[in-house]
Amino acid sequence: MIDRDALRAGLEAAGADGWLLFDFHGLNPVAGRVLGLSGMATRRLFVLFPREGEPVAVAHRIELQPLAGFEGTVVPYARWQELHEALRPLVAGKTLAMEISPNDAVPYLDRIPHGVVELLTSLGARIVPSGPLVTTFAARWSDSELAGHLRAAEALADIARTELGRAVREAGTGLTETAMQRRVIDAIHGRALEFDHPPIVAFGANAANPHYEPGAGSDAALEPGQVVLLDLWAGPGLGTVFADQTWMGFAGENPPERVLKVWETVRAAREAACRVVQESVAAGRPVAGFEGDRAARRVIEEAGFGPYFVHRTGHSIDRDLHGSGPHLDDYETHDERVLVPGVGFSVEPGIYLPGEFGVRSEVNMYLGREGGAEVTPSEPQVELITPLSKIRGGC
Amino acid sequence: MIDRDALRAGLEAAGADGWLLFDFHGLNPVAGRVLGLSGMATRRLFVLFPREGEPVAVAHRIELQPLAGFEGTVVPYARWQELHEALRPLVAGKTLAMEISPNDAVPYLDRIPHGVVELLTSLGARIVPSGPLVTTFAARWSDSELAGHLRAAEALADIARTELGRAVREAGTGLTETAMQRRVIDAIHGRALEFDHPPIVAFGANAANPHYEPGAGSDAALEPGQVVLLDLWAGPGLGTVFADQTWMGFAGENPPERVLKVWETVRAAREAACRVVQESVAAGRPVAGFEGDRAARRVIEEAGFGPYFVHRTGHSIDRDLHGSGPHLDDYETHDERVLVPGVGFSVEPGIYLPGEFGVRSEVNMYLGREGGAEVTPSEPQVELITPLSKIRGGC
Repeated sequence: MIDRDALRAGLEAAGADGWLLFDFHGLNPVAGRVLGLSGMATRRLFVLFPREGEPVAVAHRIELQPLAGFEGTVVPYARWQELHEALRPLVAGKTLAMEISPNDAVPYLDRIPHGVVELLTSLGARIVPSGPLVTTFAARWSDSELAGHLRAAEALADIARTELGRAVREAGTGLTETAMQRRVIDAIHGRALEFDHPPIVAFGANAANPHYEPGAGSDAALEPGQVVLLDLWAGPGLGTVFADQTWMGFAGENPPERVLKVWETVRAAREAACRVVQESVAAGRPVAGFEGDRAARRVIEEAGFGPYFVHRTGHSIDRDLHGSGPHLDDYETHDERVLVPGVGFSVEPGIYLPGEFGVRSEVNMYLGREGGAEVTPSEPQVELITPLSKIRGGC
Repeated sequence: MIDRDALRAGLEAAGADGWLLFDFHGLNPVAGRVLGLSGMATRRLFVLFPREGEPVAVAHRIELQPLAGFEGTVVPYARWQELHEALRPLVAGKTLAMEISPNDAVPYLDRIPHGVVELLTSLGARIVPSGPLVTTFAARWSDSELAGHLRAAEALADIARTELGRAVREAGTGLTETAMQRRVIDAIHGRALEFDHPPIVAFGANAANPHYEPGAGSDAALEPGQVVLLDLWAGPGLGTVFADQTWMGFAGENPPERVLKVWETVRAAREAACRVVQESVAAGRPVAGFEGDRAARRVIEEAGFGPYFVHRTGHSIDRDLHGSGPHLDDYETHDERVLVPGVGFSVEPGIYLPGEFGVRSEVNMYLGREGGAEVTPSEPQVELITPLSKIRGGC
């Protein structure tokens, strides 16, 4: 069920005697990921992976069915007093790693409700953050997940090039954001890919809002001279490793200097982040999430656009699009977690000029289990897509 | 947006200067309910409702769009240092109610990650539980939600009577749990109702597992002399107030003494819980969730089946089937929250005899906003459904 050597190494790194997973109504995605349980989860579940010996699950009597195949001991409880008595001998005097993050420094790692930590502490446990264990056991991609991601990445790149190429030729014809969004959705479904939230399509000044969501009736129609931002994400199914990309177009044959300058700065920032990761990996030097952010941010700051890059450079991608592994972040958080083999993440710097326009460029990276750091899709965007760009597959 | 008088009363009850809602990726259903926000929620959001004055939202710069209609001040942040600086003046020196529950006593009210409480405490806040505010603002049904619940409740009762009546006549013909489950699902969809998880159908000894989930291939076929448990839940749509009922049948004309004894005990327990709530409400006496559990449990204990009633008597129902309001629970937790006008909940005692059979009977109750405590459906189950039961709508 769980790789004992990796567990020992992770516990060593966390300074803990065991890893205590907790879940209640799915509030801790890490627990779901590591335990792979299905079925109802309406009661509290604790699972302890000790440094040595078998794992122990403390589960409510009416929800033992999901634990039928559990490789360890199952201790059932019903009354709350029984829960406390079941936990006490497991946790008393132990240092246990859980999904906590001091002062909520990394919210993705801060999943355990305050009262649960209070309860375990009152039973004699000392609780420490489980960060290294989460990266190893919850955030890494399997080979088949990697394959699914790669297929999705090439398909999304193809869709983005095609739909941006179409759109920038239709400026001034009344093409709305939601109409283009509809085309992209249909194209994604046409490739047998799935997503949860619909893609972002933003024209002109709307692109200056990084999480803009077009609404039918309130959305813009594309005018000549506007940028077009397309952020799309999908995978072979819900709960798989998605690809997540942002592509930029410009509705005109000659983008103004300012647009070109911003585009080139963003692209250079993206490349700088990818480069620091690839060079570190190639040199066998551990590289932490914050270093990728720093590399991208420096490029944007040096170009004078620092105040307009208002989010981290990238987020972990696992079976959640915003995953539980290390982020490229020295901005929203200071993410010191190391990018270990098997993890993947987005690289997506942006410059947002309120009232004017915004530009983001996004690719994904993954660190191979056998070494190397790869960018997806295979051909990232180099130039803005304009009416002069060749439509792929066209003649 | 929020009723100021009710807010003041709730803050008074909680002993707080303000209610501080926190959300991140939907981890706190109470925040979603109260704020009614839609759109992406990938960054931390804090919203303070002070005793006097306007509410204040602290939101990430890239996610201001969902707050477009917010009736109060919006303070944007981007860097984590900005978040801390935005929070400090709002929380320093204040006693703030949040969704915490000491020692996780009521897990439904324990939603705030440990690190968030730590952060706010470090900024000078004292955090206290928001229980009374949650009941008032998140758990009460609106008139239209009540109407939807009532329609669902009558439809589910009708479906249960019909499908149990059919099934108990088919014992020995190879009718499987999943085949009957399929019929019930089709009937629910036929009434234009929706659900998230499929209904539970359990035959014979499988009914002794309170959260049994039949699986195709591994499920049982109904034999003469077995009980049939049907637990079904649905509402006019996802995110509405569901009805949640359990009905019992017996595949034979003359159920054995032991089955009848267990059935009558469970039914009497159900009625005892409903009675204590109805009598308290009629007398204008506040009644807490644990009192309903105690009334039902006493009946089962006095009949000698106490050890076989291994769950609470009922759960809050709001836009989540397991809601955030008071539960009928003196077992899994000691729920002292008062059943106030506008809340609804299930009443579902059960007796589970491992290897033999199980019996649960479930109705719902709601406390009218103008007084009174009503049971749904209008005609709860009185007798086990057997092949001799009249099929409603039949001749």
